Amino acid sequence: MNIANKLIEFALGEKALPVNAAHILNLSILDWVSVSLSGVSEPVSKIVRECFLEEGGHPEAFVLGSNKKAPSRLAALVNGTISHALDYDDTHFASLGHPSVAVMPAALAISDRVDSDLMAFKRASLIGMEVATRIGIWLGRGHYRKGFHVTATAGTFGATVAASLLLGLNERQFKMALGLAASRAAGIKAQFGTMGKPFHAGTAASNGVEVSLLAYRGFISTEDGFGGPQGFGHTHDTEDNTTVFDTLGSEYIFEGVSHKFHACCHGLHAGMEALIELRNKNSVKPKDIEEIEIMVHPQYLNVCNILSPETGLETKFSYRFTAAMVMHGIDTARLESFSDISCRDFALTETCNKVLVRTDSSLSETSAKVSLLTKSGESLTNDYDLADLTNPEMREAKVLAKSNSLLGKNRTKEIWRYIATEQVNPMPVSKALFDYS
Amino acid sequence: MNIANKLIEFALGEKALPVNAAHILNLSILDWVSVSLSGVSEPVSKIVRECFLEEGGHPEAFVLGSNKKAPSRLAALVNGTISHALDYDDTHFASLGHPSVAVMPAALAISDRVDSDLMAFKRASLIGMEVATRIGIWLGRGHYRKGFHVTATAGTFGATVAASLLLGLNERQFKMALGLAASRAAGIKAQFGTMGKPFHAGTAASNGVEVSLLAYRGFISTEDGFGGPQGFGHTHDTEDNTTVFDTLGSEYIFEGVSHKFHACCHGLHAGMEALIELRNKNSVKPKDIEEIEIMVHPQYLNVCNILSPETGLETKFSYRFTAAMVMHGIDTARLESFSDISCRDFALTETCNKVLVRTDSSLSETSAKVSLLTKSGESLTNDYDLADLTNPEMREAKVLAKSNSLLGKNRTKEIWRYIATEQVNPMPVSKALFDYS
Repeated sequence: MNIANKLIEFALGEKALPVNAAHILNLSILDWVSVSLSGVSEPVSKIVRECFLEEGGHPEAFVLGSNKKAPSRLAALVNGTISHALDYDDTHFASLGHPSVAVMPAALAISDRVDSDLMAFKRASLIGMEVATRIGIWLGRGHYRKGFHVTATAGTFGATVAASLLLGLNERQFKMALGLAASRAAGIKAQFGTMGKPFHAGTAASNGVEVSLLAYRGFISTEDGFGGPQGFGHTHDTEDNTTVFDTLGSEYIFEGVSHKFHACCHGLHAGMEALIELRNKNSVKPKDIEEIEIMVHPQYLNVCNILSPETGLETKFSYRFTAAMVMHGIDTARLESFSDISCRDFALTETCNKVLVRTDSSLSETSAKVSLLTKSGESLTNDYDLADLTNPEMREAKVLAKSNSLLGKNRTKEIWRYIATEQVNPMPVSKALFDYS
Repeated sequence: MNIANKLIEFALGEKALPVNAAHILNLSILDWVSVSLSGVSEPVSKIVRECFLEEGGHPEAFVLGSNKKAPSRLAALVNGTISHALDYDDTHFASLGHPSVAVMPAALAISDRVDSDLMAFKRASLIGMEVATRIGIWLGRGHYRKGFHVTATAGTFGATVAASLLLGLNERQFKMALGLAASRAAGIKAQFGTMGKPFHAGTAASNGVEVSLLAYRGFISTEDGFGGPQGFGHTHDTEDNTTVFDTLGSEYIFEGVSHKFHACCHGLHAGMEALIELRNKNSVKPKDIEEIEIMVHPQYLNVCNILSPETGLETKFSYRFTAAMVMHGIDTARLESFSDISCRDFALTETCNKVLVRTDSSLSETSAKVSLLTKSGESLTNDYDLADLTNPEMREAKVLAKSNSLLGKNRTKEIWRYIATEQVNPMPVSKALFDYS
């Protein structure tokens, strides 16, 4: 049984969603709504929205930040880009991708198009994200190291699965959609640090919608886009870890997704959390600090280790600077905290200069160790692993707090009630989530 | 100077088009119009056209087979697919791609959008195809062998150049468009034999339009999508033959393009031409044949060597069967000649069984040697190289004859007069070429 067949059997067979996975999904939906609404005015969001809304077309699916509807392929392209514009969305470390921003915009676009209910949207999103995650792991580290952007590549397959489910494709059509997705899935890490990165999330979502609509119409593609000497696995340097598909249907790897609680690179978060705990427990003040050491997995050295950032954007990729922000009690969940002005703050840069970054390849990619030497000679240590946040209530509280800060308490409460309590609501999913008028 | 800079310097600097290149371009335009109009009713053409026209949108650019206009990104997607539907378009053997079907639909879509004249359309098309061809050679055999489809990958860059020129992008915007193209360029050979293959031409054209429109709006992408450890060259296994860019501006490699004069796989053509010459010169009849041997480059063995085809489509990939068709005087320029019924023709299959295919790696990919043993013991030999067709008048006569057969003499004459004489014609290019009403 080839990979496409396994994915289709899983997707078409899965009926009830496990409680824990459904809960994490709810958190990811709320989180996605929060970061998307917060990103609608970013420069990349404006450019992509204006460029494509100019095309016009039938009002099928809601376009973020416009209060308009547009063809579903176009809506997915724009919404996916906007939702990744802030780079504040969820990350699946095991697959090295951002599942929600690739899959949910595709699911929402088709949900609007076919007027599906919340349950169908949630089911398609979760199954799509499970597939994106598994494909990301199947592609593996080699694929990522080569330079492919997993959010774009694996994300296209996840978006295809979500869109195909909501369109109600049969088994044969589903196979054609996945086969054609192998020709559309693309995106390279040379775009990191440019508008090209968020655009990859939009293209993944739009690709998924496009190939599903074509398959629905009877398009014939290769039956196996993954295997074979000229299939996606070979051309895109998969590590071909096919065992990742063995547990499809019996567990949800998507559950391992991490939500961002700081508005900066996810590679910094474990270190920041470790320092926050250490700061709170020991009531350390900036003036007490002699030296801070942060120990992380070496893969992050060329990702988020800008030593002396000079712009707000650069502070988002700096172990040293974010450590200083944490020690000064700055709210790193707020977008505004990462500003050009903060780089010139004397007290912050003074603390920044006391921070050393070291690597240890035995550490997991989700963890960090910190040690802090006080001026009085005391040595304090702590460690943190993002993967340890498995307590459902704690996790919910943190995601809700982030949404409160981004959307306000009332709006967060409304959206959360809609998502989590699953009360019958005749409003289209997009209208209930994004409250456009 | 990186590759993007070299391409931009060439594209923005090139004013007058050399006479010979301009002549081959004219032939490619006529050929493209002929095969596109002949392919509008193919199943893949109908599916893609209906699927995307359903989106509606502003009437910017002509959509083949519809007499309608649609947004330019959409028109390029549909028209590119339709023009490659028959697989009867031109081939550039040195780059292993089909330049016209990826580049011209992008140029036509933007030409319609900005209402450009014929000269601007021709200039953008030729420069775009020159870039597609050079990028194809830069990517090299390794890229193709790995499983990437050059028409889709190199084609995206060519389409980007054509669209960017017609939109009048400045140097900076041009660079952003080419950078973003590196995230969209995709397509794998696993689709060969499915609708996915022609769809690759459409996606290349549409990608080019999309990234150019975004760059025009101010989109920021990587400055160098080709080089660097995570750029397209590395991720997509280029052979990195950068010397191919040395002669940019001083010669047009595009001139080496081959037009198809038989409605079947281009790998068969040299052998067919050799047999046609041998047949005509020696007045060989099918009943005279004892044995035919066709000698070709070994790369074609897994491309077009179906021994006993059972469908019309399979006959298009069979040395043995097309040799038989030629010896029986069947008009292999006509689409209808390749039918399921012909596979069951006793006389044809009898001749087919007399044909042997052998390989010789010292032969070029554009040539073939044939030898024919008659029943009376006479041994006749001939060889043919598609690259030898350099006589401009002979080439023009052959392309015009093909168009006559596909479009009729009157329509061919009208189109050729419009393209080749460059009389002032206030009609939009699409209207003059495709005569829609």
